[in-house]
Amino acid sequence: MSSRAGLVGVTGYTGMELSRLIVNHPRIKLTKVTSRADAGKELQELYPFLRGYELGRLVISQPEPDDLAAGCDLVFLAVPHGAAMEMAGELRQRGVKVVDLSADFRLRDVHVYESWYQKHTRRDCLTEAVYGLPELYAEQVKRASLVANPGCYPTASILGLYPALKNKLVKTGDIVIDAKSGTTGAGRKAAPGSLFCEVYDSFRAYGLPNHRHTPEIEQELSAIAGTSLTVSFNPHLLPINRGILSTIYTRLDKSISGADIQALYEEAYAPHRFVRVLPPGTFPELRNVRGTMFCDLALVPDARTGRLIILSAIDNLCRGASGQALANANLMCGLDLATGLELAPLVP
Amino acid sequence: MSSRAGLVGVTGYTGMELSRLIVNHPRIKLTKVTSRADAGKELQELYPFLRGYELGRLVISQPEPDDLAAGCDLVFLAVPHGAAMEMAGELRQRGVKVVDLSADFRLRDVHVYESWYQKHTRRDCLTEAVYGLPELYAEQVKRASLVANPGCYPTASILGLYPALKNKLVKTGDIVIDAKSGTTGAGRKAAPGSLFCEVYDSFRAYGLPNHRHTPEIEQELSAIAGTSLTVSFNPHLLPINRGILSTIYTRLDKSISGADIQALYEEAYAPHRFVRVLPPGTFPELRNVRGTMFCDLALVPDARTGRLIILSAIDNLCRGASGQALANANLMCGLDLATGLELAPLVP
Amino acid sequence: MSSRAGLVGVTGYTGMELSRLIVNHPRIKLTKVTSRADAGKELQELYPFLRGYELGRLVISQPEPDDLAAGCDLVFLAVPHGAAMEMAGELRQRGVKVVDLSADFRLRDVHVYESWYQKHTRRDCLTEAVYGLPELYAEQVKRASLVANPGCYPTASILGLYPALKNKLVKTGDIVIDAKSGTTGAGRKAAPGSLFCEVYDSFRAYGLPNHRHTPEIEQELSAIAGTSLTVSFNPHLLPINRGILSTIYTRLDKSISGADIQALYEEAYAPHRFVRVLPPGTFPELRNVRGTMFCDLALVPDARTGRLIILSAIDNLCRGASGQALANANLMCGLDLATGLELAPLVP
Amino acid sequence: MSSRAGLVGVTGYTGMELSRLIVNHPRIKLTKVTSRADAGKELQELYPFLRGYELGRLVISQPEPDDLAAGCDLVFLAVPHGAAMEMAGELRQRGVKVVDLSADFRLRDVHVYESWYQKHTRRDCLTEAVYGLPELYAEQVKRASLVANPGCYPTASILGLYPALKNKLVKTGDIVIDAKSGTTGAGRKAAPGSLFCEVYDSFRAYGLPNHRHTPEIEQELSAIAGTSLTVSFNPHLLPINRGILSTIYTRLDKSISGADIQALYEEAYAPHRFVRVLPPGTFPELRNVRGTMFCDLALVPDARTGRLIILSAIDNLCRGASGQALANANLMCGLDLATGLELAPLVP
Repeated sequence: MSSRAGLVGVTGYTGMELSRLIVNHPRIKLTKVTSRADAGKELQELYPFLRGYELGRLVISQPEPDDLAAGCDLVFLAVPHGAAMEMAGELRQRGVKVVDLSADFRLRDVHVYESWYQKHTRRDCLTEAVYGLPELYAEQVKRASLVANPGCYPTASILGLYPALKNKLVKTGDIVIDAKSGTTGAGRKAAPGSLFCEVYDSFRAYGLPNHRHTPEIEQELSAIAGTSLTVSFNPHLLPINRGILSTIYTRLDKSISGADIQALYEEAYAPHRFVRVLPPGTFPELRNVRGTMFCDLALVPDARTGRLIILSAIDNLCRGASGQALANANLMCGLDLATGLELAPLVP
Repeated sequence: MSSRAGLVGVTGYTGMELSRLIVNHPRIKLTKVTSRADAGKELQELYPFLRGYELGRLVISQPEPDDLAAGCDLVFLAVPHGAAMEMAGELRQRGVKVVDLSADFRLRDVHVYESWYQKHTRRDCLTEAVYGLPELYAEQVKRASLVANPGCYPTASILGLYPALKNKLVKTGDIVIDAKSGTTGAGRKAAPGSLFCEVYDSFRAYGLPNHRHTPEIEQELSAIAGTSLTVSFNPHLLPINRGILSTIYTRLDKSISGADIQALYEEAYAPHRFVRVLPPGTFPELRNVRGTMFCDLALVPDARTGRLIILSAIDNLCRGASGQALANANLMCGLDLATGLELAPLVP
Repeated sequence: MSSRAGLVGVTGYTGMELSRLIVNHPRIKLTKVTSRADAGKELQELYPFLRGYELGRLVISQPEPDDLAAGCDLVFLAVPHGAAMEMAGELRQRGVKVVDLSADFRLRDVHVYESWYQKHTRRDCLTEAVYGLPELYAEQVKRASLVANPGCYPTASILGLYPALKNKLVKTGDIVIDAKSGTTGAGRKAAPGSLFCEVYDSFRAYGLPNHRHTPEIEQELSAIAGTSLTVSFNPHLLPINRGILSTIYTRLDKSISGADIQALYEEAYAPHRFVRVLPPGTFPELRNVRGTMFCDLALVPDARTGRLIILSAIDNLCRGASGQALANANLMCGLDLATGLELAPLVP
Repeated sequence: MSSRAGLVGVTGYTGMELSRLIVNHPRIKLTKVTSRADAGKELQELYPFLRGYELGRLVISQPEPDDLAAGCDLVFLAVPHGAAMEMAGELRQRGVKVVDLSADFRLRDVHVYESWYQKHTRRDCLTEAVYGLPELYAEQVKRASLVANPGCYPTASILGLYPALKNKLVKTGDIVIDAKSGTTGAGRKAAPGSLFCEVYDSFRAYGLPNHRHTPEIEQELSAIAGTSLTVSFNPHLLPINRGILSTIYTRLDKSISGADIQALYEEAYAPHRFVRVLPPGTFPELRNVRGTMFCDLALVPDARTGRLIILSAIDNLCRGASGQALANANLMCGLDLATGLELAPLVP
């Protein structure tokens, strides 16, 4: 029997991506999709790529908590922060499981949340929220009713640094993350800076030096390292649709060979289907993770400067948002993490 | 039980695409992959995107007919014309089923073949070859031992024109096909004109006025129309990886309303899972077929000029080559056409 | 001594392009730039690429006719149709020369204009307007006070067909123009369909079968041919910034060799600096005209189908809009057509 | 009177770019262009974008030192390292001035050169070579006969760090340069990894951790800082044609306000036409320097982590190679640095 899922906010890129991924899912079925602006339309009018699938003929409805609770076992929230916390609260009151793709329940310290985002109106739900990075928190996710789906940049950063910090390989006070993201990361709002001709054939940094994903990254890395740390996180905008490549600069804190670092990462991720530690001398390419849950990692020790450089690549929409949300939903529904997510990368 | 398949010529884009598609196929398993240049390597060394899949660890071998016959029930040929006909002959002598992705067995008239390509050295096999366009020839493909997999441009052109010509809607003497293809269509050979910086942010026609796909298109359209016809076929190179959009200009030969043309196309393709006739006023976009078997069609009657314009979009690598090859293999193995090919388009 | 020019509507892509081109012009100086939304800012705040140029520090003002008349000898109108005709009327009343980049004065028959656009409120100015395609109308432009700057698609189409129609080489009843344009052609308005992720790595037709440039093309081609004709004009959206490539399908109306067609085109355009007739067998590429006034043409006779295919490439922003506007201003100011426009194409 | 220049190695991207830039130069004229592979052809056969220019009809010749010496006052070498040193030696013996775009004369310590490149066979010329970064060495370049034109990555890095190191703002032991380059940086050789479909819609690091530009960067930064330093330099490949954006991570070594850092940079570069220090809060975009000599800089102090992040953007082909070579040639010919190089960026 299938679980019945709802999707609140189908018109953005994370909603679009979740639609794409769930269309062939063997055990979770989308029964409700909502959008204030497009209610009344069939989903395939919005997304012609869904023509020919049963999902394409689902009629978009208004986001009503009672309606969602009646028709869904679990609901994905793909709406902006602020809107998400309200809907999450309504749904939790009605006993519906929630995977929230916004930032609203990611930061455990509400004061940190409020200093980077806005007032938090559903602190009651905050305590039950589980941070849904499966490689770290799968067991908690299985038992969770509210999952805070990680941000795209944090996902790439944390997976890249986890074994190094866990094993105290690198100094905690000297971490720089130079991140490059495809333009879907900017969302689907019709903003002048997101126009094709403003992005194509160009490249730029943005949001320096205080991007909102910084506290989320620091929260999780501090937990792994067992000490409070800060990072310098600096995003850039790639003229492509999908993908994040983070080049992470650390300083080695102990004497360890490149081979041992490699072995340590391979061992750490051996149980994890979706993290691929590349052989020494090969580097991640965004296309190799396109459309998938894979996180590709490379370790580059630099003896000359005493640094360990970590390259981490994901698809920001799939692994960094909707695919990871679906993986979390799988766990919450008692399914294997990878159910319906075994897609091969689209290369080239 | 699975069928065992071989792939001769894994290093080109059609070989790469077949690897991608077959990796999750439930009933056909790739047991042999060959390449003269890369024999001895694991497939994942060539294609890092296959890391984490069992297929990635398959060792590439030399293309030996005996070896292929011993290990495979069916072999895909993804090598250039000329090389393909020889290997096809060797494999057929050994009783192995063959799906040939080259042009070697597409043209039924060997003189036409020889005037556009080269001398044909396996005329013996030519008579048993079936032209593998499933919407037209599925029944023959099911019984075939040698399938000539259609060219990418012919696939888009024939599917676009089939109902119009079958129903004698348009004049046979006035067909222009203006085709635009992604750059994978140029192959994976390191040619100067295929370098990134020679293609990016530009656009051009090529091969006018006598591209080699012309006789293949004319052969099939003539068969449909029941009369010998010529077309003006003119390809262009898009600065993207995948996809063909053909804008097909015809002249209406009878008085028929736009609604009736639409209905006639919808009816013709109703039984066919992978052809989507779009609603009036909407046009195909290449992204909506990306990575899939779909052919998206739109009909645009132009009363002012007496023309019917047909827009036809496919993914040149999937529908136009390796996906269609796999669909044909499905039929030859007694499986449903769509087995393993129900992928949703990667949008955006 | 320099002429003083104004630019009404600096925030769109044609305004941006005119700013780029005029920055090094030796004889025309931009003294006024206007924008309702951005008045009060320095131009370099809007366009950081202009930092370091004197023009970058020009303060954007509100579009006031008196103000423009006081400070400018000539004004470029880079605002939407409708708005343009009003401002043109105001400026003409004040004796200011005008180059209008909108469609408002391109169609000589006001009924045609009103059936494709909107009500025309400045018919008084319509009669004095000259259609500013320099290869055809340079003498009239030199004496003009109001120039209707041609549309981008018409520019490519008319230059491509001019010698063929003038010399009655092709049938007037069988012309198909398959045009492909970069995305700047869609303007700089923040529309969802113009977002980077909606355009990148895709391709589609739009506006079929009745794009507004059709009557403009037909007006000019009919004048050249000396008979009223219709064309089938069909635009497509390229995932690049700049450039139009039109593939024009005609049917030969007389027996003439390819060499003679070639010679006829070369002769027709020999006096014209900015039209390059390519040698037989070579085709235009958009990059070869990037950022310039060039129109590259190739002639492809197809004996098999009795057609003459004409390939015509321009930069839609430069030759198709602001560069041509500046060329017209040059003529209106008594300068050589090419003054300040001798830029080499940016390749690659 | 014009200077007569030669260009050895016209077929690569730096040769192509030099052709583009020089075509409208008022005082330097290209009289010889050479290529072993393409000798005998007109330049416009190779580069159709040059049709319509006198330069397009120049016939490519074999690279003969006597021939070059007879016809040129100055020669640009746009050939690979190794080949360049030999030709430079031959030309210097004949009294011809040389601007070498290769790495052969950039490293003052021949042992460093030989450990990163190959044996140096023209040590005699090494001592007279001047490192041609005009903002630092214009006076020496004016008197030079042999200029080593800086590498593209070093140009962006050195201009970004110069005022900070000169003024001892930042620690010399903690510099990370995360550089992202367009694909022209990979050259025009038909290598599989440079094919369009291998680069488009993807992104990757390469050459980590020991790219050959590292010693060049360290040589110049050490000279500025007055102490030997090492940097961690890490390049990435952008799926665009042109441009380098370097994100440079440093650690502040003194207490200084953001406003003072900004003022210090503005003052340092005030005399330099082609360096633009952007206002606080705005960041460089590659498109804003496209096709030009501009280096756009932004300073981002990060109090939270004690870092100063410097963003530096150039066009790798123009500022990072051929434009800078032409600027050096201007100085060597007694002209103003900017002669013929006042092109506005091509945006969008």
